[in-house]
Amino acid sequence: MPGPATLAHRQGSATVLVRDAEGRPLPHARVEIAQTRHEFSFGNIGFDFDDLAAGRATAADEGLAALWLDLFDTATLPFYWGDFEPTEGEPRTERLRTTAKWFAERGVRLKGHPLVWHTVQPPWLLRHDLDTVERTQRARIRRDVADFAGLIDTWDAINEVVIMPVFDREDNAVTRLALDRGRIHMVRMAFEEAKAANPEATLLINDFDLSSAYEILLEGLLEADVPIDAVGLQTHMHQGFRGEEEILATVERFARFGLPIHMTETSLVSGSLMPPDIEDLNDYRVDTWPSTPEGEARQADELVRHYRALVGHPAVESITYWGITDRGAWLGAPIGLVRADGSPKPSYAALHDLVKREWWAQPQTVQADADGQVEIAGFRGTYVARSGGISVEVTVGAVRDPQPVVLRVR
Amino acid sequence: MPGPATLAHRQGSATVLVRDAEGRPLPHARVEIAQTRHEFSFGNIGFDFDDLAAGRATAADEGLAALWLDLFDTATLPFYWGDFEPTEGEPRTERLRTTAKWFAERGVRLKGHPLVWHTVQPPWLLRHDLDTVERTQRARIRRDVADFAGLIDTWDAINEVVIMPVFDREDNAVTRLALDRGRIHMVRMAFEEAKAANPEATLLINDFDLSSAYEILLEGLLEADVPIDAVGLQTHMHQGFRGEEEILATVERFARFGLPIHMTETSLVSGSLMPPDIEDLNDYRVDTWPSTPEGEARQADELVRHYRALVGHPAVESITYWGITDRGAWLGAPIGLVRADGSPKPSYAALHDLVKREWWAQPQTVQADADGQVEIAGFRGTYVARSGGISVEVTVGAVRDPQPVVLRVR
Repeated sequence: MPGPATLAHRQGSATVLVRDAEGRPLPHARVEIAQTRHEFSFGNIGFDFDDLAAGRATAADEGLAALWLDLFDTATLPFYWGDFEPTEGEPRTERLRTTAKWFAERGVRLKGHPLVWHTVQPPWLLRHDLDTVERTQRARIRRDVADFAGLIDTWDAINEVVIMPVFDREDNAVTRLALDRGRIHMVRMAFEEAKAANPEATLLINDFDLSSAYEILLEGLLEADVPIDAVGLQTHMHQGFRGEEEILATVERFARFGLPIHMTETSLVSGSLMPPDIEDLNDYRVDTWPSTPEGEARQADELVRHYRALVGHPAVESITYWGITDRGAWLGAPIGLVRADGSPKPSYAALHDLVKREWWAQPQTVQADADGQVEIAGFRGTYVARSGGISVEVTVGAVRDPQPVVLRVR
Repeated sequence: MPGPATLAHRQGSATVLVRDAEGRPLPHARVEIAQTRHEFSFGNIGFDFDDLAAGRATAADEGLAALWLDLFDTATLPFYWGDFEPTEGEPRTERLRTTAKWFAERGVRLKGHPLVWHTVQPPWLLRHDLDTVERTQRARIRRDVADFAGLIDTWDAINEVVIMPVFDREDNAVTRLALDRGRIHMVRMAFEEAKAANPEATLLINDFDLSSAYEILLEGLLEADVPIDAVGLQTHMHQGFRGEEEILATVERFARFGLPIHMTETSLVSGSLMPPDIEDLNDYRVDTWPSTPEGEARQADELVRHYRALVGHPAVESITYWGITDRGAWLGAPIGLVRADGSPKPSYAALHDLVKREWWAQPQTVQADADGQVEIAGFRGTYVARSGGISVEVTVGAVRDPQPVVLRVR
């Protein structure tokens, strides 16, 4: 099992120069150093906190939020068009902005999901002809990306394009458009509009189909100069953990395009597995799907193995787990890291142990050298250096900043 | 079952004007009209006739050739690189040219298969570095397309691109190149070189993988302006006939690109079926695979249904059956229309009945009108009009030639 020693690609260093009020180096100053965030995104969905953010929290919400914030640093927020704008022209922008701000104020990075998708469509869209559908879809992208620019700067610009034009579960305007105009047209549309609305945004294409079809789509998109910033790979594992070998082989196949890989949707059940013959996970309906002690032990073990494998691959920049709690989880499956009753499962503790202990620089107090310099070396991310009641933020990244951060005391 | 009445897209008409030696219309002249070839390509592989073409025929070869020529009008010739140029710099050009000429002299159209493929590779290619592999592959395309220009003007420019970079059955230089440079690069290379060597050539991309992956590849290629002339779809049905509904749904998916569809490799067994769990047909090895009376009856029925469905779809321009005889057939399977002993199976008679009777204008003698004009109406293709010992070729195509063909008698 690869341990921290092999994670050189996750390490960095930076220098802090402690100075007095006149700007003179302060030799041998005592400096507290603490990591505040990973460079790597350890994400989760932030779908459960609208009420909390709006000031209508229950005790259960508060408890869940504390667990969320103690482990994760990046939240995916739901922009499913049908839910977001059930009545044309009345988007629920303010509700989501409140939630987004709540996360941002707590140092959490944000991502919006998704701008174009054939599922969870607003029914009113089907009434329009295709040109109107495209114009409306373009306008919705521009509006929402612009409305959240500076708050949400990462987007799943388009979701599940491989199946988009041949999706046959329900008639919808996006599938019709994709069939008429082609997949590359759809992706270009999404990226064009999102980039126009927020040139600084990090834009992803995201898919669950990790076959050659997705690779071939990416080849075509890159050939067509669609400005993809990162490749999103979904790994919902309701039918069982795929194992380190398979997941790394998959990452390797997609890493060859030279783009960062985001593991956008990750799930492992802590109960019985979905039968392997189910093709569309949505087809599996059960009355109850309990979390079991054996399932929870297995989930914890697999979760750690999955994260170790992925954090060990240099192309992966982000892992988003798909749900903090079993309460209201997708498909009713026990994929949460917290049980429906609010108690954390072993998987929560196991992931916390990895992310916030093994891969985390523990707070320490060090003494500056004779020139007032302090070296910070550790997992890439954001740190705070504090001395004499003054603190400064330090970034430890892939490239060492030749200019030391100055901490001016008093 | 659709009959000729629904085949309006296969019908056409033309006018022949019978004139005397001085150019004056010959009223009421008697003209014999006979169809000589279909516009639609009814093809088969022409892999079995090298010896015959070289003047070393056995009686069995002669019999087989007669059956071939009486039913098919387009021959696919094998340009598998490993067989064609087993020693670098010594291509077997002359041998294939002799065979190609033999077919051409008998009015048969020709197609070369394939210019780029990862299977049947020359072993010497693996010794080269990737830049040399690409240069050598480009040179081989130019050489062979140029050498056969005017004789072979249709090519499978590239074969099985979906799997090409991930093909793992045996190490080969083309897979290595495809993995390094990408699928679109490979296809562009094939089309670029073939077009340069023969700007008049009809160039195909061909695949057995008829999933979304192939559609997505085509989207990317068209976006990249690769000049694809026709889309090749393989349908080897060793595991059973796919049925009219499935085959037409498949054609429909690929027809949406607006390119002609060529059914490049068609086969149906006249014996037991290959088990459905075999993924790569090449994995199935049996000592003997006999043709049976029940299998032959089934093959005949399915063959007719398959051809009727495809000829009924306006996007399809060509069907190539993959083998005339069971002798030496691919995988040892009884896919031939002729038994190993040289006797035709029911499938031969059934297909002949379709192609040369139901879909064929039977020879007739007609009388020109008072202006010496004769109308030919029937299946699109090449006809000959003959009067007074003089004959002229007439093309009956999609668009009626406003200028009548002149048959100048005496």
